[in-house]
Amino acid sequence: MKDPVVISSRIRLARNLRDYPFPCRMDDKQRTEVAEKVREALKNCDEKFMFVSMEDVNELDAVAMVERHLISPEFANSKAGRALAVTEDESISIMINEEDHLRIQVIKPGMSLREAYAIADRIDTELDKTLHFAFDNTLGFLTQCPTNLGTGMRASVMMHLCALADSRAVSRIASNLSKLGLAVRGTYGEGTDVSCALYQLSNQVTLGISEKSAIENLQNICTQLASSELQSRETLMQSMEYQDKISRSMGILLTARLISHAEAMKLLSNVRLGITEGIIDDVTIDAVDELMASIHPASLMRAQQRKLSPQERDKARAELIKATLR
Amino acid sequence: MKDPVVISSRIRLARNLRDYPFPCRMDDKQRTEVAEKVREALKNCDEKFMFVSMEDVNELDAVAMVERHLISPEFANSKAGRALAVTEDESISIMINEEDHLRIQVIKPGMSLREAYAIADRIDTELDKTLHFAFDNTLGFLTQCPTNLGTGMRASVMMHLCALADSRAVSRIASNLSKLGLAVRGTYGEGTDVSCALYQLSNQVTLGISEKSAIENLQNICTQLASSELQSRETLMQSMEYQDKISRSMGILLTARLISHAEAMKLLSNVRLGITEGIIDDVTIDAVDELMASIHPASLMRAQQRKLSPQERDKARAELIKATLR
Repeated sequence: MKDPVVISSRIRLARNLRDYPFPCRMDDKQRTEVAEKVREALKNCDEKFMFVSMEDVNELDAVAMVERHLISPEFANSKAGRALAVTEDESISIMINEEDHLRIQVIKPGMSLREAYAIADRIDTELDKTLHFAFDNTLGFLTQCPTNLGTGMRASVMMHLCALADSRAVSRIASNLSKLGLAVRGTYGEGTDVSCALYQLSNQVTLGISEKSAIENLQNICTQLASSELQSRETLMQSMEYQDKISRSMGILLTARLISHAEAMKLLSNVRLGITEGIIDDVTIDAVDELMASIHPASLMRAQQRKLSPQERDKARAELIKATLR
Repeated sequence: MKDPVVISSRIRLARNLRDYPFPCRMDDKQRTEVAEKVREALKNCDEKFMFVSMEDVNELDAVAMVERHLISPEFANSKAGRALAVTEDESISIMINEEDHLRIQVIKPGMSLREAYAIADRIDTELDKTLHFAFDNTLGFLTQCPTNLGTGMRASVMMHLCALADSRAVSRIASNLSKLGLAVRGTYGEGTDVSCALYQLSNQVTLGISEKSAIENLQNICTQLASSELQSRETLMQSMEYQDKISRSMGILLTARLISHAEAMKLLSNVRLGITEGIIDDVTIDAVDELMASIHPASLMRAQQRKLSPQERDKARAELIKATLR
């Protein structure tokens, strides 16, 4: 059974090789050296990584990678000397020469921070043997930006908080969480549209706290939040107007011939809620989650292997949605 | 094949018995006498009429009759001494003691003004034998309101002018038509919402023109208008946005759990267009026309034999639509 509220958990570790300056101070030769060293070191890991030099990646594929949360927008914008190591299922990815030498990322479905951390930790330990990460006994792992100093870890959980968002409780909750050292933001980064009610909660503190405590802390808050979301949903579902809204969302997704990304995300959010609340029963959550990840502009164009005009994208999106939901 | 533009044609004859004052000047006894005389006279007609004294009709049924265009709102508001004669299929109806002693109405689907007039004329001739209608050799048939003097005939055609309405051409056309002695208005009377693009065209002149000329005149204009509507539809259908709008309308109608009368009419209007233009093929025009006539508030309540709250009506309407379109 899929978690009705928690969509995925993510662990990201920032690491730097002690023998090299931070990426912003490296020359091309050093970047290439670091990338090559990481590539070699990865061969000792249990997982099989594909190694991609970002200079070989075209614009479209790079944006699609951002859409799939594999790389950061900054990483896609300036590709010189940068590389990406990624497993086939894309659950583990390593940005090389982004802000830090390594950004190790592990994404797992549902509430699985501990599981994701265990994997990231194992890879970190393995790589450290040959790469020798910069570590200070007082400060912990050294990172280019001081906000990552210490554990170098960012743990985050993507949650579908549609009922709380609807009652405007999310903004109140977000301001409380910031006092607890957590950040809440829209899925596609700060300030992005949250009309689809996908929120990312993450720890902000990396110094003076162990990875385990940071994860426990985040997980506890998320569990509380999920339970209050489920309660709100129960109230919401009493309303005929809301049932109507959910049912119509499905109708529109099944019949639209053109649909924007924002509208599709909003309607898919409603349908996801409808599935978990038993209003919609002929579609799976997996199908909805898959669509939410694949209807971004560049991902659509990548699937068709060509540039599409905005209207062509809206058409391709509508067709993909119809084919997936039918 | 259903007419894609012309929904129905209607002929209405205003007649008064020469031996009685106009209804507004009659006393109760006279009203009863007139009603009784009409009832007797109707027995000589080919059609079988049901005879309903309006005083026996409850509020809900009366409003539902208005919604079905059987009687006028005024007729429903003040029922004393009024009666309705109607055939089982409701294509012929006679309001007794409305503004005039008799208002004979014949409605037929599609462009069938001549056919409807032939029926009205036959009934008129038959009734005149025993009722003796007030007729002046110079003025023609005498009516309470001078705007009906002469033929006493109002011919009207209900048209679905969605493409012309969309391009805002209808208001320009309406002002031109008024110069030709024709009126254009929303289906449910002057000033009513025309978001569903149903328009009623009717002749305004009854004096100094034969019934035949008035009908030819109206029919010619309607034929021209229908052809220009069809041309506009062709252009409109090139647009992906419009195809999307039509397809979504169907999706919403099939999935809504609550729907207002205005929204349903608008969406049904889109679906009707979609059927005639080949965008929707799993629903018939008949089903859409039937729904357009049966989703009015009182008709819904009459079907359920009880008063419904606005939300219950919206729910019953959504259910009826779903059941009919599936």
